Amino acid sequence: MASSEYSLRRALVEKQSSIESQGNAVRELKASDAVKADVDEAIEKLNALKLEKSSIEKQLQAAVSGNPDSSVNKEAFRQAVVNTLERKLFYIPSFKIYRGVAGLYDYGPPGCAVKSNVLSFWRQHFVLEENMLEVDCPCVTPEVVLKASGHVDKFTDLMVKDEKTGTCYRADHLLKDFCNEKIQKDLSISAEKAAELKHVLAVLDDLSAEELGAKIKEYGITAPDTKNPLSDPYPFNLMFQTSIGPSGLSPGYMCPETAQGIFVNFKDLYYYNGNKLPFAAAQIGQAFRNEISPRQGLLRVREFTLAEIEHFVDPEDKSHPKYSEVADLEFLMFPREQQVSGQSAKKIRLGEAVSKGIVNNETLGYFIGRVYLFLTCLGIDKDRLRFRQHLANEMAHYAADCWDAEIESSYGWIECVGIADRSAYDLRAHTDKSGVPLVAHEKFSEPKEVEKLVIAPVKKELGLSFKGNQKKVVEALEAMNEKEALDMKSSLETEGEVEFYVCTLGENVTIKKSMVSISKEKKKEHQRTFTPSVIEPSFGIGRIIYCLFEHSFYMRSSKAGDEQLNVFRFPPLVAPIKCTVFPLVQNQQYEDVAKIISKSLTAAGISHKIDITGTSIGKRYARTDELGVPFAVTVDSTSSVTIRERDSKDQIRVNVEEAASVVKSVTEGHTTWADAWANFPHHSSGSVED
Amino acid sequence: MASSEYSLRRALVEKQSSIESQGNAVRELKASDAVKADVDEAIEKLNALKLEKSSIEKQLQAAVSGNPDSSVNKEAFRQAVVNTLERKLFYIPSFKIYRGVAGLYDYGPPGCAVKSNVLSFWRQHFVLEENMLEVDCPCVTPEVVLKASGHVDKFTDLMVKDEKTGTCYRADHLLKDFCNEKIQKDLSISAEKAAELKHVLAVLDDLSAEELGAKIKEYGITAPDTKNPLSDPYPFNLMFQTSIGPSGLSPGYMCPETAQGIFVNFKDLYYYNGNKLPFAAAQIGQAFRNEISPRQGLLRVREFTLAEIEHFVDPEDKSHPKYSEVADLEFLMFPREQQVSGQSAKKIRLGEAVSKGIVNNETLGYFIGRVYLFLTCLGIDKDRLRFRQHLANEMAHYAADCWDAEIESSYGWIECVGIADRSAYDLRAHTDKSGVPLVAHEKFSEPKEVEKLVIAPVKKELGLSFKGNQKKVVEALEAMNEKEALDMKSSLETEGEVEFYVCTLGENVTIKKSMVSISKEKKKEHQRTFTPSVIEPSFGIGRIIYCLFEHSFYMRSSKAGDEQLNVFRFPPLVAPIKCTVFPLVQNQQYEDVAKIISKSLTAAGISHKIDITGTSIGKRYARTDELGVPFAVTVDSTSSVTIRERDSKDQIRVNVEEAASVVKSVTEGHTTWADAWANFPHHSSGSVED
Repeated sequence: MASSEYSLRRALVEKQSSIESQGNAVRELKASDAVKADVDEAIEKLNALKLEKSSIEKQLQAAVSGNPDSSVNKEAFRQAVVNTLERKLFYIPSFKIYRGVAGLYDYGPPGCAVKSNVLSFWRQHFVLEENMLEVDCPCVTPEVVLKASGHVDKFTDLMVKDEKTGTCYRADHLLKDFCNEKIQKDLSISAEKAAELKHVLAVLDDLSAEELGAKIKEYGITAPDTKNPLSDPYPFNLMFQTSIGPSGLSPGYMCPETAQGIFVNFKDLYYYNGNKLPFAAAQIGQAFRNEISPRQGLLRVREFTLAEIEHFVDPEDKSHPKYSEVADLEFLMFPREQQVSGQSAKKIRLGEAVSKGIVNNETLGYFIGRVYLFLTCLGIDKDRLRFRQHLANEMAHYAADCWDAEIESSYGWIECVGIADRSAYDLRAHTDKSGVPLVAHEKFSEPKEVEKLVIAPVKKELGLSFKGNQKKVVEALEAMNEKEALDMKSSLETEGEVEFYVCTLGENVTIKKSMVSISKEKKKEHQRTFTPSVIEPSFGIGRIIYCLFEHSFYMRSSKAGDEQLNVFRFPPLVAPIKCTVFPLVQNQQYEDVAKIISKSLTAAGISHKIDITGTSIGKRYARTDELGVPFAVTVDSTSSVTIRERDSKDQIRVNVEEAASVVKSVTEGHTTWADAWANFPHHSSGSVED
Repeated sequence: MASSEYSLRRALVEKQSSIESQGNAVRELKASDAVKADVDEAIEKLNALKLEKSSIEKQLQAAVSGNPDSSVNKEAFRQAVVNTLERKLFYIPSFKIYRGVAGLYDYGPPGCAVKSNVLSFWRQHFVLEENMLEVDCPCVTPEVVLKASGHVDKFTDLMVKDEKTGTCYRADHLLKDFCNEKIQKDLSISAEKAAELKHVLAVLDDLSAEELGAKIKEYGITAPDTKNPLSDPYPFNLMFQTSIGPSGLSPGYMCPETAQGIFVNFKDLYYYNGNKLPFAAAQIGQAFRNEISPRQGLLRVREFTLAEIEHFVDPEDKSHPKYSEVADLEFLMFPREQQVSGQSAKKIRLGEAVSKGIVNNETLGYFIGRVYLFLTCLGIDKDRLRFRQHLANEMAHYAADCWDAEIESSYGWIECVGIADRSAYDLRAHTDKSGVPLVAHEKFSEPKEVEKLVIAPVKKELGLSFKGNQKKVVEALEAMNEKEALDMKSSLETEGEVEFYVCTLGENVTIKKSMVSISKEKKKEHQRTFTPSVIEPSFGIGRIIYCLFEHSFYMRSSKAGDEQLNVFRFPPLVAPIKCTVFPLVQNQQYEDVAKIISKSLTAAGISHKIDITGTSIGKRYARTDELGVPFAVTVDSTSSVTIRERDSKDQIRVNVEEAASVVKSVTEGHTTWADAWANFPHHSSGSVED
């Protein structure tokens, strides 16, 4: 807890007690019929104390909510973005005419185009440029696969039920909301109490079902809608369950991630890659999580598109051949140490983070760099993007290191991409469960000599001594580890015999020198067999898109100043439509020119929209600014047309014949708008725009 | 049944009885110690009869299976294709290391690339060129939506269970297999029996559960694996069921098609389109069908990608502005009439089919034409593609017309695209269930005068006569249709009263002139409100891809003639990789050139693969022919390289600097290989290829 908050809470308690004693003093004066001047003076003092208390309250309020106005502003900003998105059908609550289903959304035409552009660029930036092996696996997954991966047993959230209505809530959400509410709105709680609540928030993710339940009881938390008592927390599996085939005997689930489809194919993919490491497989697909209580619009939903990469690498060599291409990138990183010591994220050169060991290895660093480039190319603001390292308690026990690309939105910092070194966990789990070894081999250029322990029980001697127990003694001898065996060897050499505990017999036996030969032998090996490590960048496409919407949105005044107009500043790469074509006024000649340009744009593969309605040109611009269309061609003569850039509203004049190629060039990034601005005559919009 | 088959079966029966009598004759001669010459002559006659019988059997065998060798050839061909596809990881049975799940397949790297290319072209050909509104809806669907669409009640197959093991089978499949097996393999059945079995096959889809069960009993069909008796058939819903949210009280299903997501959004999409018809919405997504017993590899699976278009149109105007662009296409069509009269598909000009009313309307015709162009551009053989009209018994009662694009494969003719005029059915169903009117309006340019029937019961008079029954009489009067009302009007005018049957009372009442006023009034209407018709082209992407694999596959001898090599003749549009780059021999200089060309190809956006292994160039060509890579650049000098075309194996020589642009040009279809062949020096492969 910040020290100012702590001292303010203390000051508030003191002030309250001063007010109470002064109140008593006033009452006593009145009761004792004191002179009016004395009474007035005491009341004045009381009022002054109340004013001071109120001032402390204001300071405390500001301290607990950061900028006192910021949460209000964030809400208003989000409302403006979401209104525009829903009105323009970027997204729509699914099954709206049936009052919808929480946590399910449709992408309407512009949203669907943005999503498709983001996925195309993902394929270009990762799959094609890195020669990844893309696969496409079904969503329906048999239980055995998700049993092996751990999802059947562990992919749960803790839930509590309203004991009367049966409504379900996430236990940690209720506790979190309670603590936040108390801290931010109840100024009367003591500094110690506030510190306790903050501690609960910090350890929330680590609490067991019992601990969560105890806290809920202790704080008297009830069902938010009914105030009814709540059940104890119990785990709820987040996978959508179903049944495969008609028998009802083959349980299955809708995949909670796409990664398992890649892991189970490792053997074939490794072969396809010529039995060489490293290589990466990739998959774009739907993932399903039956959230207990979906929140935050597109950020926590029950079905979403994931794009995942599984990069398989030799655990003994995690270097990356293209690492140098990203090593000089510098961006906001938030290492574990900074988080624990209460510092904030800071700009670090990626190469430095890797060389100092802050980032575990080059390959992990390479992907962090590539993810940074991917997100910023899409239009994510680099100052509101940070890479946060997982704390020890967040990370799975098997993970070597894990970083989240977090994007700041009106909901706070949102995890949008997870980049984890999962070591050999997944391949080992499927090897164990399926019995099919998911391993790689390194052939040595020449055979290597290795020392191996050899334990050779002399069965005849053992048989003579132990008769029917011979087999158990042999097994126990063979099961010794290296240290035990070498200890026995030296004892036998010095003393000739040794006492040896055989657990299957439950007793010690005496082993003589003649009964076992223990030696270290040199062997030649031609290859090394190992389970590859997996480095997994996993992209929540819907979350990235939502953050992109927020980062791209702004409002500006209409020319007349009487209206606030909404704009999405999407880069052409992302924009749902690249260009509009408008005849300035309704007129057959202009329409014909518009159609000619439209045809050229189609031939050039530029998605565009032609609008020949009689609406004013200013309104038509405003409408397409709201869709984030970067360029508008306006036909105001039969020989030349204007091209307007969305954000600057600058216009150039080009010949009809070259209009499509100029748009193509600036859209596909062959030239910039600045180039076009330098090369073509400018057009002053004059009174046209509004 | 073809008449030859019928007469052959009769001839076979006759021949068998001749053989039996001749056999008796021989036995009698032998028993009566007849002279050897007579016995020999009788035996010779018997043998001749047996030879004749055998010849008839062969003819019959040929008649029932078409070409006698064809089914064997088809099997062998399919095996060759499937072996190549699985070995090259075009597709893989899903979860193979866990022994897989029937009906689930993964696309491996080349299959995934083909699929992605097919979907991109679909988007280009339909969504972009036709300005469709693409949406993206979740797979998880609440029950109410699928209740409205009819899937909860009617999306079933009939199933029978092995009464001892519980194994499930599709009832119609068992009956179909039994009939086919009998007809094709049992030559001893009578012509009448064969005709009966053929009739069963023809009406199979129309049989009720009871009729199917009766046939299974009658034919003594048992479980194929165990020969155990079977249960009666009962319906099994093919949707994967699940539960939405934690309460367990909200049943949901994985969508069996993507169309419903579009229908429920009609109101918003219509508004987005400026409240104008016609417009089309489109969606690419996963569909799920829990098949009872999946068969035929990629053709009948439990999860697959659908691409669907819902074109909304005024039922009174189904013309299409771009219809003339496809009217002159000519291809195989198989109208209802030809099917019923036993003829085969024939080439018809699309314009003729529409103008003769064979195809119901222009819009339906337009989509049939566009589907034809789509499939043939992908590489589907136009001679093995036909458009088959649904028979009356195949079509839903509400459908106006329905055509399937069927592609011939080794499994027979496969339905790959359905193109249906579903009239107003879907929008009406959701209007009724949700209470939200999914309708369109046509604003009249000037108000229209319409005549409306007005029936005005005079309640006071009716109350006096009918007392407590007044309400029922009023309702019956108001429920009259136009003809009934006008008949009553004229009767009342001529006779003053009329007998009127009130069904809710179950009796006639006497209506007098004073009791009701019936008139036709003129009203001004400003718009017409109607439910649009839906024309739905629905593409099974996996089926199209599988047929494409078969149509693209061929084998050719290696140069040495000692091996059969596999080739996929994919057009560049579809090919998983567009080009390979090979240094002819391992050599640093050639490798550097290969890398330069690879960089230019990446910059040009051409997906390619560089192979610097020391494998012989012939083997490297063969490997990539098997992946259907259309072009190979071979570096055999530092100044110029060869480009080889896959199917002709022809090679041209180009400068290193122009290699990437030549490949880009032929790959993207700006020029053809013939152009390149005409413009560049030829290179003779000499002894290089093998």
